[in-house]
Amino acid sequence: MRYELYYWPGIQGRGEYVRLALEEAGADYVDVARGAHGTAAMMKMMEAKTTPPFAPPFLKAGKLVIGQTANILFYLGSRHGLAPKTEAGRLWLHQLQLTVTDFVLEVHDTHHPLGPSLYYEDQKAAAKKRTDEFWSERVPKYLGYFERLLEDNGGNYVTGRRLTYIDLSTFQLVEGLRYAFPRRMKAFERKIPGLVDLRDRVAARPNITAYLASDRRIAFNEDGIFSGTTRRWTGKGMSFRDGPIGPDPESRDSGSAPKGASRNDSVFFYSFINSRRYQAS
Amino acid sequence: MRYELYYWPGIQGRGEYVRLALEEAGADYVDVARGAHGTAAMMKMMEAKTTPPFAPPFLKAGKLVIGQTANILFYLGSRHGLAPKTEAGRLWLHQLQLTVTDFVLEVHDTHHPLGPSLYYEDQKAAAKKRTDEFWSERVPKYLGYFERLLEDNGGNYVTGRRLTYIDLSTFQLVEGLRYAFPRRMKAFERKIPGLVDLRDRVAARPNITAYLASDRRIAFNEDGIFSGTTRRWTGKGMSFRDGPIGPDPESRDSGSAPKGASRNDSVFFYSFINSRRYQAS
Repeated sequence: MRYELYYWPGIQGRGEYVRLALEEAGADYVDVARGAHGTAAMMKMMEAKTTPPFAPPFLKAGKLVIGQTANILFYLGSRHGLAPKTEAGRLWLHQLQLTVTDFVLEVHDTHHPLGPSLYYEDQKAAAKKRTDEFWSERVPKYLGYFERLLEDNGGNYVTGRRLTYIDLSTFQLVEGLRYAFPRRMKAFERKIPGLVDLRDRVAARPNITAYLASDRRIAFNEDGIFSGTTRRWTGKGMSFRDGPIGPDPESRDSGSAPKGASRNDSVFFYSFINSRRYQAS
Repeated sequence: MRYELYYWPGIQGRGEYVRLALEEAGADYVDVARGAHGTAAMMKMMEAKTTPPFAPPFLKAGKLVIGQTANILFYLGSRHGLAPKTEAGRLWLHQLQLTVTDFVLEVHDTHHPLGPSLYYEDQKAAAKKRTDEFWSERVPKYLGYFERLLEDNGGNYVTGRRLTYIDLSTFQLVEGLRYAFPRRMKAFERKIPGLVDLRDRVAARPNITAYLASDRRIAFNEDGIFSGTTRRWTGKGMSFRDGPIGPDPESRDSGSAPKGASRNDSVFFYSFINSRRYQAS
């Protein structure tokens, strides 16, 4: 069976957690919205009468359509050896992935604190405050938690001796924070040596190494802010007003279109979830 | 087996989605942190070496400790007839609950847009903007989605002909919005007749009716802002500075303590997740 992944083309976003799992598993899949008419097909699925997803990403697995990133990973994990076999182990792993979900939402809020429908440029001051608090309180809290889990079980993988999808997700968190906040993250990394080491070991896995070097890993493209693909997207709140950041496609409803990303370490991380470039370590 | 629910005493919060499921199921459970030394017991569980929850609520079921509200409901649903029997049905239901989770986070952000560690009084202007956007864009998007699901399957329950935990959760959303934003919600309810009707049918179920009338349903208490229980809580960001709202106990880490809630329809909803009073319809 070939899986069909539906997610906004041109960005890593939440879809990336699913891609990493599919790639590590060596699963057969197609990234539908990156193909011709793919975005239209995605929008159509969201208008279905039965089990319409609220937002991308979602995965079509045979007749099944599964939405919500953590839910997709829960499904894939048990089928591809990326989760424990016991119910208790799977629930624990899922719980950790939902904590990653919470963290990603907080990352998101550093640049859209006044809401996902307003432009970044209209909420810069609020974004600055939120970002300061994010780095002083939230990053230490969340990453400290995962670092402690690694330590407490001997440092191999987050849940023990075997790699699971949560390890792929923490890899992506480290990558995203490095990209979006290079200076802050560089200073912070000494506090999370276990996670940094895990990031390196994940990057060195053959399937992941091959993926990161491939064009399946979406690259950031600073010249591609207004691509033809972007212009085709429609939805409430969409606009082509100038400015680095438009309404946020990662707003869990995705009624609006991405406008590309610029980079500003002090207030911002749009690229964390919208990164188009993979930065080799 | 008697379940042990661990959640901040004195507030409904995210624990309420779990309580509603336990009550509808007629399950045997104890709300641990509401008892003597309960909060200390809860904090101790979060410091465990194995599978420590990141934040309340969490449920102890025999030897299993399960965190994250949606994960707990996933576990309970299949054991107590509050979820479909098929894997596809359970994944769909869980997906919907995770969409409720997203919505509850957006509710949260209407009053703490600059971050969960700052005081509400220090972010009033931002909260006003976020609240306006919440009601113009986000509430219609989310509740419209659930209303459409109800319509498309004939209007009985969100996922079909049988009640599941998602129906209990949408009940709580309607209740919370009514409490926190009485004027805005009153105007909005004509757009979601199906959800309002479902709310009434849930409230009329014998186990739910009995629960809502009992003292197990935590009541809002405007005189109880600084209760003895609250003062015992410790954690980073905790403070007893005067003012209606302190750092938010619902910030997914819960390192800080609630300070009670006041009510202000225009900017605010703290009570939605921290409500201490059940308002009979």
